Amino acid sequence: MNFASDNWAGAHPDISANLSRHAAGAATAYGDSDLDRAIYRRFSEIFEREVAVFFVATGTAANALSMSACNRIGGVAFCHSEAHMTVDEFGASGFFTGGARLSPVPGVLGRINPQALDRAIMRYSQDLAPAGQPMAVTITQATEVGTVYTAAEITAISEVSHRHGLPLHMDGARFANAIAAIDTTVAEMTWKSGVDIVSFGGTKNGCWMADAVVVLNPDLGHDLRLLRHRAAQNFSKSRFISAQFEAYFANNLWLETARHANAMSARLAAAIEDSASARLAWLPPANEVFAILSRNNAERLQAAGAKFYDWGVPHGLDGHIGEDEALYRFVTSFATTTEEVDRFGQLIAG
Amino acid sequence: MNFASDNWAGAHPDISANLSRHAAGAATAYGDSDLDRAIYRRFSEIFEREVAVFFVATGTAANALSMSACNRIGGVAFCHSEAHMTVDEFGASGFFTGGARLSPVPGVLGRINPQALDRAIMRYSQDLAPAGQPMAVTITQATEVGTVYTAAEITAISEVSHRHGLPLHMDGARFANAIAAIDTTVAEMTWKSGVDIVSFGGTKNGCWMADAVVVLNPDLGHDLRLLRHRAAQNFSKSRFISAQFEAYFANNLWLETARHANAMSARLAAAIEDSASARLAWLPPANEVFAILSRNNAERLQAAGAKFYDWGVPHGLDGHIGEDEALYRFVTSFATTTEEVDRFGQLIAG
Amino acid sequence: MNFASDNWAGAHPDISANLSRHAAGAATAYGDSDLDRAIYRRFSEIFEREVAVFFVATGTAANALSMSACNRIGGVAFCHSEAHMTVDEFGASGFFTGGARLSPVPGVLGRINPQALDRAIMRYSQDLAPAGQPMAVTITQATEVGTVYTAAEITAISEVSHRHGLPLHMDGARFANAIAAIDTTVAEMTWKSGVDIVSFGGTKNGCWMADAVVVLNPDLGHDLRLLRHRAAQNFSKSRFISAQFEAYFANNLWLETARHANAMSARLAAAIEDSASARLAWLPPANEVFAILSRNNAERLQAAGAKFYDWGVPHGLDGHIGEDEALYRFVTSFATTTEEVDRFGQLIAG
Amino acid sequence: MNFASDNWAGAHPDISANLSRHAAGAATAYGDSDLDRAIYRRFSEIFEREVAVFFVATGTAANALSMSACNRIGGVAFCHSEAHMTVDEFGASGFFTGGARLSPVPGVLGRINPQALDRAIMRYSQDLAPAGQPMAVTITQATEVGTVYTAAEITAISEVSHRHGLPLHMDGARFANAIAAIDTTVAEMTWKSGVDIVSFGGTKNGCWMADAVVVLNPDLGHDLRLLRHRAAQNFSKSRFISAQFEAYFANNLWLETARHANAMSARLAAAIEDSASARLAWLPPANEVFAILSRNNAERLQAAGAKFYDWGVPHGLDGHIGEDEALYRFVTSFATTTEEVDRFGQLIAG
Repeated sequence: MNFASDNWAGAHPDISANLSRHAAGAATAYGDSDLDRAIYRRFSEIFEREVAVFFVATGTAANALSMSACNRIGGVAFCHSEAHMTVDEFGASGFFTGGARLSPVPGVLGRINPQALDRAIMRYSQDLAPAGQPMAVTITQATEVGTVYTAAEITAISEVSHRHGLPLHMDGARFANAIAAIDTTVAEMTWKSGVDIVSFGGTKNGCWMADAVVVLNPDLGHDLRLLRHRAAQNFSKSRFISAQFEAYFANNLWLETARHANAMSARLAAAIEDSASARLAWLPPANEVFAILSRNNAERLQAAGAKFYDWGVPHGLDGHIGEDEALYRFVTSFATTTEEVDRFGQLIAG
Repeated sequence: MNFASDNWAGAHPDISANLSRHAAGAATAYGDSDLDRAIYRRFSEIFEREVAVFFVATGTAANALSMSACNRIGGVAFCHSEAHMTVDEFGASGFFTGGARLSPVPGVLGRINPQALDRAIMRYSQDLAPAGQPMAVTITQATEVGTVYTAAEITAISEVSHRHGLPLHMDGARFANAIAAIDTTVAEMTWKSGVDIVSFGGTKNGCWMADAVVVLNPDLGHDLRLLRHRAAQNFSKSRFISAQFEAYFANNLWLETARHANAMSARLAAAIEDSASARLAWLPPANEVFAILSRNNAERLQAAGAKFYDWGVPHGLDGHIGEDEALYRFVTSFATTTEEVDRFGQLIAG
Repeated sequence: MNFASDNWAGAHPDISANLSRHAAGAATAYGDSDLDRAIYRRFSEIFEREVAVFFVATGTAANALSMSACNRIGGVAFCHSEAHMTVDEFGASGFFTGGARLSPVPGVLGRINPQALDRAIMRYSQDLAPAGQPMAVTITQATEVGTVYTAAEITAISEVSHRHGLPLHMDGARFANAIAAIDTTVAEMTWKSGVDIVSFGGTKNGCWMADAVVVLNPDLGHDLRLLRHRAAQNFSKSRFISAQFEAYFANNLWLETARHANAMSARLAAAIEDSASARLAWLPPANEVFAILSRNNAERLQAAGAKFYDWGVPHGLDGHIGEDEALYRFVTSFATTTEEVDRFGQLIAG
Repeated sequence: MNFASDNWAGAHPDISANLSRHAAGAATAYGDSDLDRAIYRRFSEIFEREVAVFFVATGTAANALSMSACNRIGGVAFCHSEAHMTVDEFGASGFFTGGARLSPVPGVLGRINPQALDRAIMRYSQDLAPAGQPMAVTITQATEVGTVYTAAEITAISEVSHRHGLPLHMDGARFANAIAAIDTTVAEMTWKSGVDIVSFGGTKNGCWMADAVVVLNPDLGHDLRLLRHRAAQNFSKSRFISAQFEAYFANNLWLETARHANAMSARLAAAIEDSASARLAWLPPANEVFAILSRNNAERLQAAGAKFYDWGVPHGLDGHIGEDEALYRFVTSFATTTEEVDRFGQLIAG
């Protein structure tokens, strides 16, 4: 009953096996092997357009290097006020960019409100130029609270961004879960909706360590190879990431694992809704369930072996949460089993 | 006959297998799993003292974060003029430290000369304070030209460093090859010789991607966890590095693979020496052979399938190299076979 | 009728004359002349305690270097959401600190609310550690909207700051105007109220260019000399700043000029209140008047030769401003004359 | 007898008087006043072409911002091994550029050797790309050892720079002394010889604090206004620098003061040559004299009231300096008097 996080899981057997399959033999280092090149092409197929792909070590690196690619002097990027980039990455994007800032924009359930975004960007318009230069907008898909943007919602945001001349970045740490949730194509969810650059995460969805910056807008990626080198994210044995992605994409494994994780969250949500002792904070389209439990109940479940996190700050839930209650997060992954979820369901029902 | 670089090899079967063995199950993320903790302890055993271990994505990251741990305002670190850190890392250490510099120090065959080091540091003494603050000394072991420092030579350098109040860093991208070459203990080659912090590389010696900063001097490591997080080098599934190191250290695999690589270089060197058409530039104690060949001969060997690099700048070899000759580098690894070397031997003899 | 800004004024005659008086003769460069040392002592007298003084080129430099002195890895400083540092300095503090952030805190009329500050800091407490490390709190005195903190209000903020282990910085671009407004001592308004480091501005109050970081808390200033040198703010002919401060402090000139500027604002405010066609947005204790005028009226006054700025974003004034109205800022200085103000008074009354 | 440095002098009376003349009245802040604009045009006249001018607080700021204007990812600028930028500025250019490096190039008497420059740049050519990207060449005119480049020598260097696609920067802290020494025009010494960007110093030659970046190559200056703002070098009362430059350029005051300083150095050099107890290290074309004295003699002169510096490291003078001798630097300025020099002449002759 481990719902702590999807990065507590290990690697999917197919991915692990493919790594072993590629263990022998010599291959050109630093991203130029035949396998690396094949995987770059595979990304272009999946995105249905020519893309540039840069493997990196972590999702944080993908985000911070994406911001570096968009960097301007005195730069300001606009993100949701609960974005991972501002809340969880220890200032990495500020560090990578030599001081560019993240300006928080409000929005319901983890999603930037396009009107609020427009107002936020306009605060940096000509009259207030001394504040800095707008440089990018970034959204997280699926969001930090487990919700997803529809393609139309992304388009609404990209329209605001592009009207102000700003590229749109997508933090896709849970990219696959979002694709599975809104049942669309990669192209629709990204460049057809105006996304210019993506942090493409495979780690949370069954890889060991497979993250990449995927550049969709050819105006952006020019310097990324150099920025990555200087940021010490240039792998000598790059093929060990390629081997993971090879298996990840084969037979749509990545969508299968994401759909499974999402289904496990739906099952978990149903169990919580059915229980008398807990309720959903909001509906979980992807693989994260947020629920309100009494602290006693949470402790009881944890004592019985369930792992999940107290989500601290109640995101606009004041008044909806009782004094003895709190918000809790449950994450499912490719490795979550029906049995695990049902065991938890029995426990919470008890 | 692939002697291009030891990072063209893949992973040793034991390491690959151990990764697969740890693929299943849930484990605490971000370096706090039981396996991670066990590996940190293993490092302390191997170093024969309490050490702090920080996994990172690349050797460049290990170096740049080590420099960050030693950083001072207007900082200057002293390295050999051919050090990887200054010649191959695209300014990563300057970027990570917000502008600290590497000041090159001369020395024969890749090894810093202690007297030259002393003079270089003294140029930044009180009278010339406006130049900046000395902050560290860094050596590479084995060096960029395949030579190694003896423990006594390291001690001579650490004595100069410490007299000036500077920590001594060791870039150990080929740490195991050096240990195997001088047949000493890890403790003797590091802290007993005055080394304070080590970039410990496993990648070139049979891992997929296993590099770490190992802090020997407890005064240094305080901020490394935070510096690493901000540098986007904090792995969620940290155990996939731990799993590599577990197999790496088991049954002294790491020393066995290093000894094998070194033996292959010795065998290759002998073949070159025996040939009429090439000569060694210097003796190779570890796993890199530098030889002088006519350009015609090199092209002939490459055309026949041998892979090795033209080493461009002749390191103080002017006058020893003919007009039609050049310096070439051959690297062997855990994966190099006797058969490969002997095939090359026959070729060069021909 | 120039109310555009107090930095549109030139230099007070006493200050200009003193510069000329010190023009001849040789003096040790880089802040070590006899005059420099005398001025450092003068600061200590004025602050009624031993302080360390570092001259810098601009108020922005004083702020950014103060932040550098408080810098931590992944650092976060807390400022008012309308603070000059976040709204007007083009990201200087983020740049100087290699990426530390300013986290905006709300508060009425330019003043941080202590409870909101406490909540903001707590968001970075242990549970949410991945966001970064709190490093400082900064307040502006007088504030960006012309209000001032009382000593008690500063104490309330320093108590929150210090409870969280954070130093309190004061952006004193209009330090003298604040002292004059609340009629207290420098010591009371700073270290006796818990302020640890001050950006002490003389430029807006009659100097040509005289700004300094004044360090009150001896734990902070250690690195400032080096940080300033690296930031290219180390003046060779430092005495030209000292000469300004010598005259500035002589016979309490600085308080006299500030009192004059404040009195001119009070006179201007009275004229606005007396007029039928404009109203004060709030009372102006120092030397900045904020008033609500119809756009037509503002244009009429500007056409008649009055200089003042449209203040764009109505700071929480929605609902209080009519559709055809806007907020305008009027600044007075040591050089503002009664005649100028009265001429404006007649104009607006007309 | 103060020959310590030209920045120990104060301000020329004309400059001081002009500052006073401009003390009253209101003027647009931040470099947009009528006076500022007039001075920008004056610079264009003096350079005989359209230039962009950015006032800054120090020569170090001019240099570091010039490097920022040339900055590239992993950037490397080439300077003389004794350049002020690398020896005296506490790493400012590395800090301003987020880690770009200065690569030292040898050359006789403070002047870069064009062939050595070519070789140094080529070390960063395609084969060794991982070292970083060449970004600029910088020369100091007059040099740190008081010598000057002729226009032909500058052209030789700019030809190497431009062949490699690199802009040429001139650190002109003693620009006027160089112009006076080689008796050429500003245009000839700069853009006609291939210089792209200049740190134009007025401070050492009679101003209080008047330094500027002057951009000759229109490809470079685009971002300088923003870079300067972010670097906290954007003066509110910019006209106090303009007022200095106004007087500086009026009636060729700047050339007159420079010629005087140079003449004083020539007179001082003659006195040293005439003495039996000292000798010139090399001929001084500008306003810095380097001489070899016995330590006893130097102490005797200093005890008698002469101020000058022991120049520590003997720049390639080993073998030419006796055991009890050392190299000393004497600097003259606009304020040096014939009487002072002659008094020193009598003293050293004695």
